[in-house]
Amino acid sequence: MNHPAQLAALRKPVPAELLAALESIFEDRFSTSQAMREHHGRDESSYDPMLPDAVVFAQTTEEVAQAVKLCHLHEVPIIPYGTGTSLEGHILALRGGVTIDLSQMNQVLAVHAEDQTATVQAGVTRKQLNQEIRDTGLFFPIDPGADASLGGMAATRASGTNAVRYGTMRENTLALTVVTSDGRIIKTGTRAKKSSAGYDLTRVFVGSEGTLGIITEVTVRIYPQPEAVSAAVCSFPTTADAVNAVIQTIQMGVPIARVEFLDEKSVHSINAHDKLNLPEKPLLLFEFHGSERGVEEQAQTVQEIAAEFNAIGFEWATRPEDRTRLWAARHNAYFAMLQMRPGGRAISTDCCVPISRLAECILDTKADCEKNEIIHAIIGHVGDGNFHVLMMVDPNDPADIAKAEGVNARMVARAISMDGTCTGEHGVGLHKMDFLIQEHGEEAIATMRLLKHALDPKNIMNPGKIIQW
Amino acid sequence: MNHPAQLAALRKPVPAELLAALESIFEDRFSTSQAMREHHGRDESSYDPMLPDAVVFAQTTEEVAQAVKLCHLHEVPIIPYGTGTSLEGHILALRGGVTIDLSQMNQVLAVHAEDQTATVQAGVTRKQLNQEIRDTGLFFPIDPGADASLGGMAATRASGTNAVRYGTMRENTLALTVVTSDGRIIKTGTRAKKSSAGYDLTRVFVGSEGTLGIITEVTVRIYPQPEAVSAAVCSFPTTADAVNAVIQTIQMGVPIARVEFLDEKSVHSINAHDKLNLPEKPLLLFEFHGSERGVEEQAQTVQEIAAEFNAIGFEWATRPEDRTRLWAARHNAYFAMLQMRPGGRAISTDCCVPISRLAECILDTKADCEKNEIIHAIIGHVGDGNFHVLMMVDPNDPADIAKAEGVNARMVARAISMDGTCTGEHGVGLHKMDFLIQEHGEEAIATMRLLKHALDPKNIMNPGKIIQW
Repeated sequence: MNHPAQLAALRKPVPAELLAALESIFEDRFSTSQAMREHHGRDESSYDPMLPDAVVFAQTTEEVAQAVKLCHLHEVPIIPYGTGTSLEGHILALRGGVTIDLSQMNQVLAVHAEDQTATVQAGVTRKQLNQEIRDTGLFFPIDPGADASLGGMAATRASGTNAVRYGTMRENTLALTVVTSDGRIIKTGTRAKKSSAGYDLTRVFVGSEGTLGIITEVTVRIYPQPEAVSAAVCSFPTTADAVNAVIQTIQMGVPIARVEFLDEKSVHSINAHDKLNLPEKPLLLFEFHGSERGVEEQAQTVQEIAAEFNAIGFEWATRPEDRTRLWAARHNAYFAMLQMRPGGRAISTDCCVPISRLAECILDTKADCEKNEIIHAIIGHVGDGNFHVLMMVDPNDPADIAKAEGVNARMVARAISMDGTCTGEHGVGLHKMDFLIQEHGEEAIATMRLLKHALDPKNIMNPGKIIQW
Repeated sequence: MNHPAQLAALRKPVPAELLAALESIFEDRFSTSQAMREHHGRDESSYDPMLPDAVVFAQTTEEVAQAVKLCHLHEVPIIPYGTGTSLEGHILALRGGVTIDLSQMNQVLAVHAEDQTATVQAGVTRKQLNQEIRDTGLFFPIDPGADASLGGMAATRASGTNAVRYGTMRENTLALTVVTSDGRIIKTGTRAKKSSAGYDLTRVFVGSEGTLGIITEVTVRIYPQPEAVSAAVCSFPTTADAVNAVIQTIQMGVPIARVEFLDEKSVHSINAHDKLNLPEKPLLLFEFHGSERGVEEQAQTVQEIAAEFNAIGFEWATRPEDRTRLWAARHNAYFAMLQMRPGGRAISTDCCVPISRLAECILDTKADCEKNEIIHAIIGHVGDGNFHVLMMVDPNDPADIAKAEGVNARMVARAISMDGTCTGEHGVGLHKMDFLIQEHGEEAIATMRLLKHALDPKNIMNPGKIIQW
């Protein structure tokens, strides 16, 4: 039952009574139009769209609870939708049902600057939050690239470029408001920085991809804006040199804020896209946060390490505009890389390994891409042992797609054999369900299934994702 | 069914067949002797002992699984036991049953220095781990005071003095091996630093206090020993001044490694116990980790902040022996404080609040102790908003005990009203079950109960703790 086509066969008509009830609650925020359903039936993955039967736009937790109670009564699937930027098919309506769009739940509910916490509705995006708290001298560091919603980021356990210093959504979510599968509203935690008070419901829902409940509010940690920030960029003759420089930086305990790897193909793409002229070789992009002296000290240590690994140039970017330009290019990398094969479709994947195995894992994956003549690029949050492969395929050529999926499967198997994970930050969605079993083993999956059955006994919460029923 | 006496009434005789089967597996590591049962029927809480019917000493995960399978078959309670240092009645055999002592599971299984991870059997203590990894240049920072086992620390979501910088067991546990209630063996994670691969089973079991499964192996993060360490000690005219100095330090983002508050009574106790002559006023004990320059810079910033809050003296302790002496005194504080009332018994409790409310919460709790004429001391991991109250009572005077429990109940209510938690690091055990409901509300407790019922349908895993069945 893992495949969309099989699951779609389970699709049942949604009762007219349910649709009428939803319409009476949501009025003009209820839609069954083809355009609206199409918009909500796809994400950034390479899957064909699979449309929900209806879409509602909720504005409060109570509205979500009302919608869930109705769907629960009629045993109709519910899919939460934030910004639609997931990468593994998370929000496809495999069995139809009702998509609850949370983008209008966009209120920042509370900022406790003195406690370094913020509580937001699930639809608030990370950029919006940072905009709204700018004057407090604090910032929210988690940055998965896309301007995702905090609800979506919590649901996929997102991380990104700053995770090496500030952690992921796992570490930075203090509490959630969740609507359970039967429409109850629970709060999973408090604003205390730590707690030993009972089961960790917060982390049961963080990373559950909408399959156990719907996250409607998120309380996160926010951090003092560093006194000083500087960036540096540095090329290396080989991928191994670049990655080994990172490994040594981490092993020495340098509290680096960001360190991103771009292979020569990624550099080529962003040069073209952003009109830069970086050397088209493996590249590291660093960011340092701290006091003036601390930042200087970190950069100096890293420069020395880079030199040991044959670094070609080590350029500082202390001016904010230069830093911004470099990081904007990094953030555009995904779109830049899409242009490597016009008319093609991207298959994007990620994995994460213990850092000592990172160079080997990247090199073997790269060699596999080359052997299979796949147009690809590799970028990575390498300080965490996490990297991404983007493969451009011809969407009309099944053999081409199969080749890319082969590379993906072998990359995952390689990562797992290195005591790593099948996904560092994209999540499981549809695309990695088989790999999840490979990673955890049947017994652990059986325990995950006990959780799913306990919290969603009717299998209506984003069904068909993460694990098979 | 929350009270020991009621639960004990549910105690059923353990089948002779089960005892015989356990004895044939564990041989001389099986015991039903009174002395052994008494040793395992108490922790550091003020509860009277409640004895298990038998004790087995497991040496491998497989042995634990065998014992659990047998208990599962006979529906007999199982209580995991590490070092017996829990504080809230976690390991009392309320309904009898079999205690599985894990102290002989004391092998460090793997140290991956290059990845900064270590995997240990659950009975390895934090001091043992630090001893065994000393030569790698790495250390395990989590320090709850007692030389607890890592299994026990994971099970109670422990933290302690270093948490302000390095996080708690929640953040530092990468993976667990767990024996489920029906005796299956699962691995909950990998050595990858981050993962979005499915439900976060690791954090389902971290903090579950043996009520969902038995943790038999723990993989934790370890950290580079800092290049430089320094400590400082500083007194303040009032508790408010001391706590406000900490609040400002945290708000400024100083990456302090430890900051401990001791009230004047705690200082008095440790002066007597450790032959020190610290001023008997509210005191802060700081530790700084970093580069030579970084440590200096942090200490200078903190000294300036302390001065703003009327600090009396700011003494450096850069010599390792001075640092060790101060921190040893801090670690002895619990035992030192026990001597405030010879023949008395200690009721120990903790809570954790958003840091902006910390001064108020401590001051109101202190005033309540004084109003009730309770011999008490307050110490705290104040950088996290977490503090402990130790109250010395006459174990033979129910009115005295009731007074202390009244202070505890009001402290918890105060913490919860401040959006804090009923326990920052002690856990729930028996003592805080009612408060857990107060904190989370019935709906969230109902969700916790779904987890318990799903993972332990026979209610044999440390029954009667955390939540009522």
